[in-house]
Amino acid sequence: MDYIDFMTRTSLDHHNCSFARTVDIIGDRWTLMILRDAFYGVRRFSQFKERLGITQAVLSARLAHLVDYDMLTKEPIEEGATREDYRLTEKGMSLFPVIIGLMQWGDAWIHEKTGAPILVCDKENGTPVDPLKVSVKDESREPRSLAFRLGPGANAATKDAFARLK
Amino acid sequence: MDYIDFMTRTSLDHHNCSFARTVDIIGDRWTLMILRDAFYGVRRFSQFKERLGITQAVLSARLAHLVDYDMLTKEPIEEGATREDYRLTEKGMSLFPVIIGLMQWGDAWIHEKTGAPILVCDKENGTPVDPLKVSVKDESREPRSLAFRLGPGANAATKDAFARLK
Repeated sequence: MDYIDFMTRTSLDHHNCSFARTVDIIGDRWTLMILRDAFYGVRRFSQFKERLGITQAVLSARLAHLVDYDMLTKEPIEEGATREDYRLTEKGMSLFPVIIGLMQWGDAWIHEKTGAPILVCDKENGTPVDPLKVSVKDESREPRSLAFRLGPGANAATKDAFARLK
Repeated sequence: MDYIDFMTRTSLDHHNCSFARTVDIIGDRWTLMILRDAFYGVRRFSQFKERLGITQAVLSARLAHLVDYDMLTKEPIEEGATREDYRLTEKGMSLFPVIIGLMQWGDAWIHEKTGAPILVCDKENGTPVDPLKVSVKDESREPRSLAFRLGPGANAATKDAFARLK
């Protein structure tokens, strides 16, 4: 069922919206869990499968999807080897703030009593990463002090939807 | 189908992981799209429905889910009114960095040629928000300079999985 769902889902790839297009690619629980594990350093199919406890079909579909979108790349496990594993590309790596943001939200709202199960820290001295913040010229901002504006890539549909929001 | 999927999905709520628990709640395309629209200021059922182009059943299920998890609250549209609309709670609001991160990733990797369709800017002077960054004591960091560590909330299963990662 999970396999079918993923393949037959309603596509958002016609949206003139960076959020919708991103969600179209990664807005799926298993895709996100695979990305989490890739940041943990997991590379092998068997290790993803064991850690996530998902079927071969679901895992294969999600990995192929991430390779198609150039978020993961398949590479020989070592030079000259025929076996391959999966590694984050630069495009995949650049989701790092989102991964950290999802973890920190869970730390704050789900594990607020027990404390974080996992911390992301400086490799050398163990200092945890700062809470992610939205800022303008390095000054932290609340949503209420910000506004959405049309950007250079807005098409007619976006302009129309935007006008009707007001 | 979308309605059934959502209700019968494999739960991740037993995971001792802030990322998995967060993804369990919001790792679904329509849930994320509803949150996007809530940040745009959308409040009414009919307006979510029109903007997202989804069925009543799918939208009702996702909104009820977000209310159950205290991300949205149902409130009278004005004092004394019987009609209600949906507003972000503090818990929902605190997903703001994740929402911005997903938009910025799409701006960088999908709309890199056309430019961003929508910008998030200072309300007063129109300066766009900074690119989100992961930092330690305000110093920007790449994933490679960071490491995952067990936190105070790690249970036996997390410790075991963590040990096997090395």
